[in-house]
Amino acid sequence: MFYHSSKLQYEVRVEKPNPLFAKMLQQAIGGVEGEIRVAMQYFFQAMGARGPVKYRDLLIATATEELSHIEFLGHAVALNLEKAPTSMQEEAAKDPVVNAILGGMNPRHILSSGLSAMPVNSNGVPFDMSHIYATGNIGADMLANATAEAGGRVLAERLYNMTDDPGMKDMLSFLIARDTMHQQQWLAVIEELGGLEAALPIPNSVPESHEATKHSYVFLNTSLDKPAPEGRWTSGPSLDGKAKFSQA
Amino acid sequence: MFYHSSKLQYEVRVEKPNPLFAKMLQQAIGGVEGEIRVAMQYFFQAMGARGPVKYRDLLIATATEELSHIEFLGHAVALNLEKAPTSMQEEAAKDPVVNAILGGMNPRHILSSGLSAMPVNSNGVPFDMSHIYATGNIGADMLANATAEAGGRVLAERLYNMTDDPGMKDMLSFLIARDTMHQQQWLAVIEELGGLEAALPIPNSVPESHEATKHSYVFLNTSLDKPAPEGRWTSGPSLDGKAKFSQA
Amino acid sequence: MFYHSSKLQYEVRVEKPNPLFAKMLQQAIGGVEGEIRVAMQYFFQAMGARGPVKYRDLLIATATEELSHIEFLGHAVALNLEKAPTSMQEEAAKDPVVNAILGGMNPRHILSSGLSAMPVNSNGVPFDMSHIYATGNIGADMLANATAEAGGRVLAERLYNMTDDPGMKDMLSFLIARDTMHQQQWLAVIEELGGLEAALPIPNSVPESHEATKHSYVFLNTSLDKPAPEGRWTSGPSLDGKAKFSQA
Amino acid sequence: MFYHSSKLQYEVRVEKPNPLFAKMLQQAIGGVEGEIRVAMQYFFQAMGARGPVKYRDLLIATATEELSHIEFLGHAVALNLEKAPTSMQEEAAKDPVVNAILGGMNPRHILSSGLSAMPVNSNGVPFDMSHIYATGNIGADMLANATAEAGGRVLAERLYNMTDDPGMKDMLSFLIARDTMHQQQWLAVIEELGGLEAALPIPNSVPESHEATKHSYVFLNTSLDKPAPEGRWTSGPSLDGKAKFSQA
Amino acid sequence: MFYHSSKLQYEVRVEKPNPLFAKMLQQAIGGVEGEIRVAMQYFFQAMGARGPVKYRDLLIATATEELSHIEFLGHAVALNLEKAPTSMQEEAAKDPVVNAILGGMNPRHILSSGLSAMPVNSNGVPFDMSHIYATGNIGADMLANATAEAGGRVLAERLYNMTDDPGMKDMLSFLIARDTMHQQQWLAVIEELGGLEAALPIPNSVPESHEATKHSYVFLNTSLDKPAPEGRWTSGPSLDGKAKFSQA
Amino acid sequence: MFYHSSKLQYEVRVEKPNPLFAKMLQQAIGGVEGEIRVAMQYFFQAMGARGPVKYRDLLIATATEELSHIEFLGHAVALNLEKAPTSMQEEAAKDPVVNAILGGMNPRHILSSGLSAMPVNSNGVPFDMSHIYATGNIGADMLANATAEAGGRVLAERLYNMTDDPGMKDMLSFLIARDTMHQQQWLAVIEELGGLEAALPIPNSVPESHEATKHSYVFLNTSLDKPAPEGRWTSGPSLDGKAKFSQA
Ligand SMILES: [Ca+2]
Ligand SMILES: [Ca+2]
Ligand SMILES: [Ca+2]
Ligand SMILES: [Ca+2]
Ligand SMILES: [Ca+2]
Ligand SMILES: [Ca+2]
Repeated sequence: MFYHSSKLQYEVRVEKPNPLFAKMLQQAIGGVEGEIRVAMQYFFQAMGARGPVKYRDLLIATATEELSHIEFLGHAVALNLEKAPTSMQEEAAKDPVVNAILGGMNPRHILSSGLSAMPVNSNGVPFDMSHIYATGNIGADMLANATAEAGGRVLAERLYNMTDDPGMKDMLSFLIARDTMHQQQWLAVIEELGGLEAALPIPNSVPESHEATKHSYVFLNTSLDKPAPEGRWTSGPSLDGKAKFSQA
Repeated sequence: MFYHSSKLQYEVRVEKPNPLFAKMLQQAIGGVEGEIRVAMQYFFQAMGARGPVKYRDLLIATATEELSHIEFLGHAVALNLEKAPTSMQEEAAKDPVVNAILGGMNPRHILSSGLSAMPVNSNGVPFDMSHIYATGNIGADMLANATAEAGGRVLAERLYNMTDDPGMKDMLSFLIARDTMHQQQWLAVIEELGGLEAALPIPNSVPESHEATKHSYVFLNTSLDKPAPEGRWTSGPSLDGKAKFSQA
Repeated sequence: MFYHSSKLQYEVRVEKPNPLFAKMLQQAIGGVEGEIRVAMQYFFQAMGARGPVKYRDLLIATATEELSHIEFLGHAVALNLEKAPTSMQEEAAKDPVVNAILGGMNPRHILSSGLSAMPVNSNGVPFDMSHIYATGNIGADMLANATAEAGGRVLAERLYNMTDDPGMKDMLSFLIARDTMHQQQWLAVIEELGGLEAALPIPNSVPESHEATKHSYVFLNTSLDKPAPEGRWTSGPSLDGKAKFSQA
Repeated sequence: MFYHSSKLQYEVRVEKPNPLFAKMLQQAIGGVEGEIRVAMQYFFQAMGARGPVKYRDLLIATATEELSHIEFLGHAVALNLEKAPTSMQEEAAKDPVVNAILGGMNPRHILSSGLSAMPVNSNGVPFDMSHIYATGNIGADMLANATAEAGGRVLAERLYNMTDDPGMKDMLSFLIARDTMHQQQWLAVIEELGGLEAALPIPNSVPESHEATKHSYVFLNTSLDKPAPEGRWTSGPSLDGKAKFSQA
Repeated sequence: MFYHSSKLQYEVRVEKPNPLFAKMLQQAIGGVEGEIRVAMQYFFQAMGARGPVKYRDLLIATATEELSHIEFLGHAVALNLEKAPTSMQEEAAKDPVVNAILGGMNPRHILSSGLSAMPVNSNGVPFDMSHIYATGNIGADMLANATAEAGGRVLAERLYNMTDDPGMKDMLSFLIARDTMHQQQWLAVIEELGGLEAALPIPNSVPESHEATKHSYVFLNTSLDKPAPEGRWTSGPSLDGKAKFSQA
Repeated sequence: MFYHSSKLQYEVRVEKPNPLFAKMLQQAIGGVEGEIRVAMQYFFQAMGARGPVKYRDLLIATATEELSHIEFLGHAVALNLEKAPTSMQEEAAKDPVVNAILGGMNPRHILSSGLSAMPVNSNGVPFDMSHIYATGNIGADMLANATAEAGGRVLAERLYNMTDDPGMKDMLSFLIARDTMHQQQWLAVIEELGGLEAALPIPNSVPESHEATKHSYVFLNTSLDKPAPEGRWTSGPSLDGKAKFSQA
């Protein structure tokens, strides 16, 4: 069961409200790299977790934290929309800056939400729940989670570079830090279960008779005019320690 | 900020697991009448609430409760999927009951989620966040919330009639009760603000000069072969007390 | 069966075509607050109406009117797109105003529709029919309809404030007026059926044995650090007249 | 402006209600081959039509007819849902036929719509308006319309073969006939404008300097192991009469 | 089976990178008029082709070419994004041109893709595969393909007019040419099979007993105030040569 | 540029066609775990790859292989649909097996595709391209790819268990093997670049000044009633070797 405290997990301040940055911040709320996605992904994984209870606890604890990230980002969007122009009447006809803002901001921040955050990305496309990856296989799910946090941290850094508002930079530095931790905690689960060598191939419970193993460690080059790109994947031991890589 | 307790808001039991009912319960999680929708709708309305703080508190308190509804419904789905057939091999060829279950259940409950709940409706269509209605106008939002709870209670009653599992009926009787309360609390906000007469038309802040009022209280009949359907909307005082209904 | 007359329901004029306003007007056509939504919602409700024929007549009459709203809004979009720039060649390189228009308008108004209206919202996201709410329960459906019209009128007023074109203001004043009437007519159905007290809880046909009534009138506070927000929903008679509100 | 008459365009009867056929009929309402699509496609094309007024009239006249097709198909779905099982309680446990129906029908016909039609396809996926093709180019649009009617007639014939209900066969024979006419009327517009030879390539207004014409009539074979498939497209005069086909 | 060569089908150059044109070019990749659509449509039609093998070969050959179109368009988008501003810090505050670019470009080209192409349209809406039309009926499919290429060529010409970059004009002149050929090759299949007269009505295999033929060649006027628009579709022989057009 | 050979990458045979298994196989084509997803994801990553050319070559080579997986899976679906019932007429009324098949199979395999594969998942939901993850950061992208292949292999194993058709088991054993290789090749890229320790946190180019590092290695417990779940993520060195894990 969930509870709420009136304190934000991270206090947000905005010195120079910027409706264009509000539009961009939406990517961190309703984008595939955003907080709704991770909150719901960890929540559904937790509900489906059937193994040791500590992994379920880990998932639900972090799902809960991500809900709090949605919350302070929502405040950040609203603060960036303060004083946004809501009219193209006098001023816009004259002022190219206002014109550019009205053209560049998300019109639904004016028309639909009344200057508040929405569960959409920076193009205004609503988040859809097909992005909640939860297979019931812990290896697959932990990789999916690390992926989500990698995408999230890439995004947070790009948003950091986009703004020069000190309040926004401060908030983003917190999100960057939490994404660091979250990446690591999901990969730490894999390490605790024996590391990648033991986890691979995912799922590691497939009977050998189900797999045409002669195709399992062979890089297939489909290029007509270039040799196979050589690397760690074309020779040497496979990452699961069961075979040697080759190429065809 | 959100917190979590390991106790479910409502303890769920299932006596006769039924994968077909699991599919149907998904409507209450990921359908437009479901719990993800209300949780997120109240959450985004709370983030955008700019009026008296008590309405923001009311919204976030109930958003938090709805997250707990998702949680126990997720358990209910998983319990209904226990012992679901995961193979069409021997048994299905022979047993028409297994056959019918495999045809009738959501195949992604086997293939994608590993016998767990998903953020989809009873057709397997993922929930999408365009259904989060949050305008920033309290009258519009309270009506939207009462509507969501009305749809939710209609659904819960239909699910109640669908099953004869005592555990499921018990759980649904709780959801029906909470939907009763939630319908009323949102309409109570309107009542507290002066009732429908004061709230209408929504938004009640439109200057009279913005409205072609001669068209505001006239029922328009577009039928070629029937007279206007007569009722409360064709004569008598308008619901906002400002005019009399008429018809054209 | 439907018929068409070549006269628009409301004559539309635009004095200063504005491609950016064309983009914004799309919200009133293909947004969740828009006319496609209400036209189709009332149409599908009418097809499913099984009670007194006058409600079916009311629904189909208004569905038909909403089709006419789509039609004149479509003309308004096209008129606002007249003389829109269709090239970034010479002029745009030089003129910041043209540049801002090209950046701010919906590029698909040039690329995809040839300067005409599209069934999309102001972000260019196509309308999807999951927003057609039609449950077969008249109380739920009338609330959904009043909600849709509330959202529509909020939007129309915001669009009114956005423009200073007299023709557009005139057209929007008509839409604001019709939304006033439509809000009231749907709520008038509830009043005619006995008012909210009789309608609640929706659906009002749930047998008492299906509901865990001890939870039906209790406000649940999930806040860890704030008392329950007090209001009409925490004490006094419930809106259905069956109990008293309390809090837990 | 639109009007409505209470008479259905085609009277619908169902002798043996069949919830599974109700699910399938939904494809003809909310599928990409369905009636919502053509109604809205012709409507938006009409609103964007800038050429001779008769084509606009043709478009809006047929858009209006298609609305009437939605209407009687909606009745057909509701009639097929009469007496559908709404419970898995006693009977379903015992009766494999009821079981199969409950597994095979669309659960949202019970749970969401109360035994009425919905704007979804036979998989329960809501129609989305990205399928409204309206480019503003009459050649492209007429081809799109003929395509839509071709898909519609293929579907209607498959539905005809699926059922042995005389009422349903009768209704479908009408839809098949109207699709015949609609295919022809859109192609007749092209013929009236000079036929395919004059229309091609669409758009036929591209200045020759915009086209790398040496690539315009050459079939490009990308197969590594098969010669180009020979046919009308590899030799002989091009369909626009401007060149000869060749292959590379 | 597919193979790849490292040479682009068409070499792309961009003289003046333009992030706004990058956004517009996305329509040609991920729009309904774009290359993903035709590649996948021809691919799925080929997989379902059951008639003479040459049509399957034709489909798969062109599907393969369209994959190469996606590829060079992807390069064109990336080249247009070179030197795009990735910050609103110093410069944007001062420079209205940078401001307009940042407001007008797709923010996800910075935030999500790292200045690369995405499978989205010019509004940032991801392509969805419901647009892959493949009925298994060759007449319907060939019309659908000609329609797709007509839409594609309309788009390519509009993009051509939008830019003055010689490299982009050059690339688009190639796409315009290929669309010319593709339109013709699909219609040539119909001609080879006997032409439209033999193909119509599609599907041409419907038994006469399935069709209410008295409605098959009659234009239905649903206008209340205008006579039927007269043209090739109201009199004279039907396009399938089986009857005469009339009107009702 | 792409080319095609008429040989399937893997020859497919089906001994006992099964329309229900055809529906399930669709998950491997058009599901988020399916082949369209990986083909397009690697393709778009390749187009955006700006680092050493060998990674671009690796990506495009495997994208091309995945296109071939779509192709033979498409054949597998068609083969499973051979002899599927296309009528509910005589037989279905009598035969419960046919009845169950008609209820359980995807109706659009009959109605829309003419017994062929479609770009949809096992619920009939079309694939949408928002699932193409391509950030331009190689660490994030390689994790996303390993995740996709993990999900794919989980799915293939579940499909393997679902069927007892030897031909289908044989085909799936090939897919399982290729997913093994693909998982490893993407993780091998990370290993080649220094392994997870060097790669983390992703992106590993964030300046330290952008990160609130005191929050970067701390597990945050949001549970009200349980201690933090202890594991590799609560103590010991962080996976990037830069700090020690702790908890708050
Ligand atoms: Ca986060
Ligand atoms: Ca609830
Ligand atoms: Ca309206
Ligand atoms: Ca029709
Ligand atoms: Ca092309
Ligand atoms: Ca694969």
